[in-house]
Amino acid sequence: MTRRIRFITEYDGTNYVGWQDQPNGTAVQELLEKAVFETTGEKTTVQGSGRTDSGVHARAQVAHFDTEARMAADKFAYALNTRLPQDIRVLWSEEAPEGFHSRFSAKYKQYRYAVQTGPHARVFTRNNALHCYSKLDFDKMQRAAEAVTGEHDFRAFMCKDTKMENTVRTVYLSEWRREGEMLYYNVAGNGFLYNMVRILVGTMLDIGAGRKGEEAIAEALTGCDRNFAGATAPAKGLTLWRVRYADFDTEEILSKL
Amino acid sequence: MTRRIRFITEYDGTNYVGWQDQPNGTAVQELLEKAVFETTGEKTTVQGSGRTDSGVHARAQVAHFDTEARMAADKFAYALNTRLPQDIRVLWSEEAPEGFHSRFSAKYKQYRYAVQTGPHARVFTRNNALHCYSKLDFDKMQRAAEAVTGEHDFRAFMCKDTKMENTVRTVYLSEWRREGEMLYYNVAGNGFLYNMVRILVGTMLDIGAGRKGEEAIAEALTGCDRNFAGATAPAKGLTLWRVRYADFDTEEILSKL
Repeated sequence: MTRRIRFITEYDGTNYVGWQDQPNGTAVQELLEKAVFETTGEKTTVQGSGRTDSGVHARAQVAHFDTEARMAADKFAYALNTRLPQDIRVLWSEEAPEGFHSRFSAKYKQYRYAVQTGPHARVFTRNNALHCYSKLDFDKMQRAAEAVTGEHDFRAFMCKDTKMENTVRTVYLSEWRREGEMLYYNVAGNGFLYNMVRILVGTMLDIGAGRKGEEAIAEALTGCDRNFAGATAPAKGLTLWRVRYADFDTEEILSKL
Repeated sequence: MTRRIRFITEYDGTNYVGWQDQPNGTAVQELLEKAVFETTGEKTTVQGSGRTDSGVHARAQVAHFDTEARMAADKFAYALNTRLPQDIRVLWSEEAPEGFHSRFSAKYKQYRYAVQTGPHARVFTRNNALHCYSKLDFDKMQRAAEAVTGEHDFRAFMCKDTKMENTVRTVYLSEWRREGEMLYYNVAGNGFLYNMVRILVGTMLDIGAGRKGEEAIAEALTGCDRNFAGATAPAKGLTLWRVRYADFDTEEILSKL
């Protein structure tokens, strides 16, 4: 009997070409598929809630695979971890209900982008935050972030080479938090275009540093023109933070681990 | 004119054989001395507040060196960082007052040991915390930690091969903190014997897991016998957290960066 197993995976993206297979390096998906094969003997596709780019991290990526194996569903987390490198972990696994699909069933995704301010790039955030020398005006960045909330055509915040019919997305949460010399941008929505979060962050950093006016985000949203937006912020500051479905929420599960 | 420059350095000990030169790998001190040489052209000794073992980290190690170079003292931090790898940073530098010595003038040193509990070793703490599968009784560990406070002969908590005349030390702070699935042991004193913090942690983990009774710490302190204490906890969980002198405190400086 084929069952669908869904799981939460955490990874440090530093050493990977991203979630999905690329010709030039190792993908997280590839190592998960290898771990499933070594566990069950089955060649299978591990389907994620979405791709993450090269260098992007995940605190809570959701994925699923189908299997004939009879192992108790919650034991897959342990079995896969014995076959994964230390920078990829499966934190939880269970049998998915009928019709569940990690990508198509996702209702809400949250990302966090970390910026480290201050004169020197710090050691313990070197792989997970962008170090920014410029003085940043936090209030301006916060007001710019507020303009992102709601339903918009985010075409201006998409990598130019991407082909995508529908570029309208709804953003539920868009705010900066300050903790000492760290700044965190938290953004949640029903979906994100390719590079969207990194271009939003790049634009807000331009606003914070005074290279662009506060209205730049609103203008780019209205004008639908990539040229209005700022540069794409580096991948290493970005982390897939949370994914929600009708019947479960990674945040709730992680809080009970 | 020779000046003494003192500085705060932060490092990830994962890739180093410790603070001090060893035959079999790269030491943090060695890379700092090389960076000073590349900056000033002078061969000099970089003297730290104390050695850290292979794999041990520092959030705030203090060190000094002597130089004839005329560079403004606060600029050394920037100059050294351009010559250091990303996992070693100099966060601050200034001219030391007459008679200052990073080791002999230190009044107070604080270490933190991080333990990650829960079923799976997590990705983002893999190099800086010990993952502990066992269920740990937090209250027992806290009570054991209290017994460490005060002036004691810590001979039982010293690596057996160490030769040391005076093994009496005063511990000012010894407590566990819980944050989600992380447990942090904070310990501060006027000095520490070789491996002392790691043996204290090893003993308290034995107590928390029920492998030793709560009285094990007090008995080892009274008996002065290494065999009463537990195993040496792995280096990677340990971080040199704070050093204080009569005229400055790393914590105060870091809070203003």
